[in-house]
Amino acid sequence: MIKVVKVGGGIIEQDDALNAFLDSFAQIEGPKVLVHGGGRLATKVAESLGYKTKMVEGRRVTDENMLEVVTMVYGGLANKKIVAALQAKGTNALGLSGADGNLIAAHKRPVKDVDYGWVGDIDAINSDLLINLINNGFVPVIAPLSHNGEGKMLNTNADTIASTVARSLAQKQETQLVLGFELDGVLRDFNDKSSVIEKITPELFEQYKSEGIISDGMIPKLSNAFEAINAGVASVKICHALKVGGVIGTVISK
Amino acid sequence: MIKVVKVGGGIIEQDDALNAFLDSFAQIEGPKVLVHGGGRLATKVAESLGYKTKMVEGRRVTDENMLEVVTMVYGGLANKKIVAALQAKGTNALGLSGADGNLIAAHKRPVKDVDYGWVGDIDAINSDLLINLINNGFVPVIAPLSHNGEGKMLNTNADTIASTVARSLAQKQETQLVLGFELDGVLRDFNDKSSVIEKITPELFEQYKSEGIISDGMIPKLSNAFEAINAGVASVKICHALKVGGVIGTVISK
Repeated sequence: MIKVVKVGGGIIEQDDALNAFLDSFAQIEGPKVLVHGGGRLATKVAESLGYKTKMVEGRRVTDENMLEVVTMVYGGLANKKIVAALQAKGTNALGLSGADGNLIAAHKRPVKDVDYGWVGDIDAINSDLLINLINNGFVPVIAPLSHNGEGKMLNTNADTIASTVARSLAQKQETQLVLGFELDGVLRDFNDKSSVIEKITPELFEQYKSEGIISDGMIPKLSNAFEAINAGVASVKICHALKVGGVIGTVISK
Repeated sequence: MIKVVKVGGGIIEQDDALNAFLDSFAQIEGPKVLVHGGGRLATKVAESLGYKTKMVEGRRVTDENMLEVVTMVYGGLANKKIVAALQAKGTNALGLSGADGNLIAAHKRPVKDVDYGWVGDIDAINSDLLINLINNGFVPVIAPLSHNGEGKMLNTNADTIASTVARSLAQKQETQLVLGFELDGVLRDFNDKSSVIEKITPELFEQYKSEGIISDGMIPKLSNAFEAINAGVASVKICHALKVGGVIGTVISK
């Protein structure tokens, strides 16, 4: 089973947290793919260069200058920092942006209410490239960048890439999507952090919702997980971001 | 025959020149590898970030801040710009730094008279990775970065990488090193830019030197070419940097 793990920009920005995450990621056995963010680092570098970061509904507006920043920071600084660190941990990481080997073909998001600039909506994932690398013993590390096939890089959300990559790989091989957050998993009792629910099926999801065990912020997270599963992903694991290589977590599946 | 082409930072910095170079590179038939520089772009970005560039004998002194800049600029900005542009020209480019797939293992240059900082001297090239990618239809595009295997990226000269990659590939498959410069090749008559010498062997090299046809700046260039050939590279082509895909040029071989 291929595991597609996503790590966010908040962890990447802090050396200690990143190191703890990568230690845990390196422990995952079998084929795996890492998709990383880097937004906070991009905001810092943009600020140092005198560019102001503009966010609309949590998404970065990417003008020409900001596209240079995210290309440098996601594809260069963050990606190579992760790859070099994984190499030191004995994991044969290989970094990719969406342009490399045409991994993520995308188009510029059409302007409706908001002009997000050079932001890419995904058209296709080259899962053959990922499977070829995995079969040759490499661990692909994907930066949140796509390209338009006309020479332009595009800024694309890391969560969207992780989910789309998992769905695409799932057409070829059994695939699990691993999503880290600040807890050990979905909790039965919010006041007891060790009360992790080990497994959630669609039936249990309905039951837990009706019993009030699952509510609020967890509902959209789980709905997204079931969407991935309905699109062919074998399971989604929700666990602590720094324990992706461990056994504790909630596994969502059919 | 695999062709290893090197393009310098002066061309990368100018959009028109880069586009002309990549058009010509895209026309090269058969397996190929591109090694790029990016020094001038790094100097610009460093300046925008308030870091001063310090060069000693033409080599960049790479402190912690400068290492972040070259990692961003070489591995991110320059590499992805080239990869995305080649993809648009129908060339299935895939960008790599020396950390990716452990492509270029290196160690920090020992401090003697000068402390160059985070500069890497190459220990080994993972030519199997390059041959695997080439056999799968990809065109590797290599940024001038190596790594030390302990989590640190290192800054390494692009000419040195191109030459070392060519020597390493030559142990496995017939390889040509292609070096661009500002002329169409080695000239028989310096005042006649069309008087390109088509072929130079060691015997002809000695003859041309004794006749005064080859002198001055061309001697070290040709000596370096013969060094590569003595290390197993089948031939070295010296041609105009914007015509690497053409037929005009001087081919140096045994």
